[in-house]
Amino acid sequence: MARTRDQAPSARATVKQTAARADYEAETVYAIIDQALVGTVSIAMDGQPFALPMMVARIDDQIYLHGSRTSRIIKHLTAGNEVCVAFTIIDGIVVARSGMNCSANYRSVVVHGKGTAVEGAEKAELLHQITYTIIPGSKGDYREHLPEELKATSLIRIPLNEAASKVRVGGPKDDKDDVALPHWAGVIPLTHVYGEPLPAADLPAGIETPEYALKFPLKN
Amino acid sequence: MARTRDQAPSARATVKQTAARADYEAETVYAIIDQALVGTVSIAMDGQPFALPMMVARIDDQIYLHGSRTSRIIKHLTAGNEVCVAFTIIDGIVVARSGMNCSANYRSVVVHGKGTAVEGAEKAELLHQITYTIIPGSKGDYREHLPEELKATSLIRIPLNEAASKVRVGGPKDDKDDVALPHWAGVIPLTHVYGEPLPAADLPAGIETPEYALKFPLKN
Repeated sequence: MARTRDQAPSARATVKQTAARADYEAETVYAIIDQALVGTVSIAMDGQPFALPMMVARIDDQIYLHGSRTSRIIKHLTAGNEVCVAFTIIDGIVVARSGMNCSANYRSVVVHGKGTAVEGAEKAELLHQITYTIIPGSKGDYREHLPEELKATSLIRIPLNEAASKVRVGGPKDDKDDVALPHWAGVIPLTHVYGEPLPAADLPAGIETPEYALKFPLKN
Repeated sequence: MARTRDQAPSARATVKQTAARADYEAETVYAIIDQALVGTVSIAMDGQPFALPMMVARIDDQIYLHGSRTSRIIKHLTAGNEVCVAFTIIDGIVVARSGMNCSANYRSVVVHGKGTAVEGAEKAELLHQITYTIIPGSKGDYREHLPEELKATSLIRIPLNEAASKVRVGGPKDDKDDVALPHWAGVIPLTHVYGEPLPAADLPAGIETPEYALKFPLKN
């Protein structure tokens, strides 16, 4: 993916509403997906929409999701059907002088594409990489996958060549005539804060909390 | 909506994967939607899934979303087609002794249903109510809607009679044999914190920051 900010990759990936907020550059798309960690995975089945939040990891210009081989969505994606994955981070509530101009500051990405099931040694290796991507710096702090785990789990790869981000920042955009009204206007910022790690109740004595947990998320 | 925790409202609303985490009670569903503020709205159009994050307000046993009358999703919902709306709040990263048992603590709701376009005086009144719902305690701090705003904006109502929540809490659930391994395990909690309100750059002098912004979100 190497496009300019305004260069949409396809018709369906083009942001239509408030198009000035659209951004198709990889750097923006990657940063939002990487922070979001969870995406809403949507499919169309028998003409009906189904959506489910799932953990999603980005590696290079692909995203990966995994789940039980028996899951409805995973089976649908393994069969090569279309998928849409949406990521959203809310950064604040925008209060305007009119209800219609109230809004939210947010960063979102919508990905359109088809999934591919990854199998064999590549799957086992990528399932580790996904964990290190979601929990940066934790490499090596896990046991090896078991054959029955690999058998029960499907890994789906979706390319990011049809991804678009949309970002709203800043204060309210009120109608010119409204600015003098005696109503408060501004932004209530929302931040997402990782706190002090809580060791598992059954953690054996002597295992210290690692840096990757204390300073989550470490830069990869 | 008045069901017990285990009573799914329909086949498609029944949680299939890790069904023990499912909860169909209104109180749980309402609390998650009310905190999330933004839902991912998914539709199936010509066999393809389309998803978009939108601000969603819950009033009683319905959710409401609004948008430009010309928007693709709004037009699709106004025509009475199926919709799926997903809400997700992530509460932490769960680190296990194996990559496969790593997880996230989360609260999610998935709503299936059909939208109805609300029109006329009810629409104007509900559009105000939606603002007071998203920004509790702000009633009266806005100018009246303009006729051209009401004309350009569609309001869609979706009932919550087919809603299911799914909640994961607590520490890692490792395989029994893994507990003694020399790997750290636990939860890295994630909290969502509203900060000090930032007044708009063009706010006239003398307008104080209201309590609804200082203590966001006030209880309604």
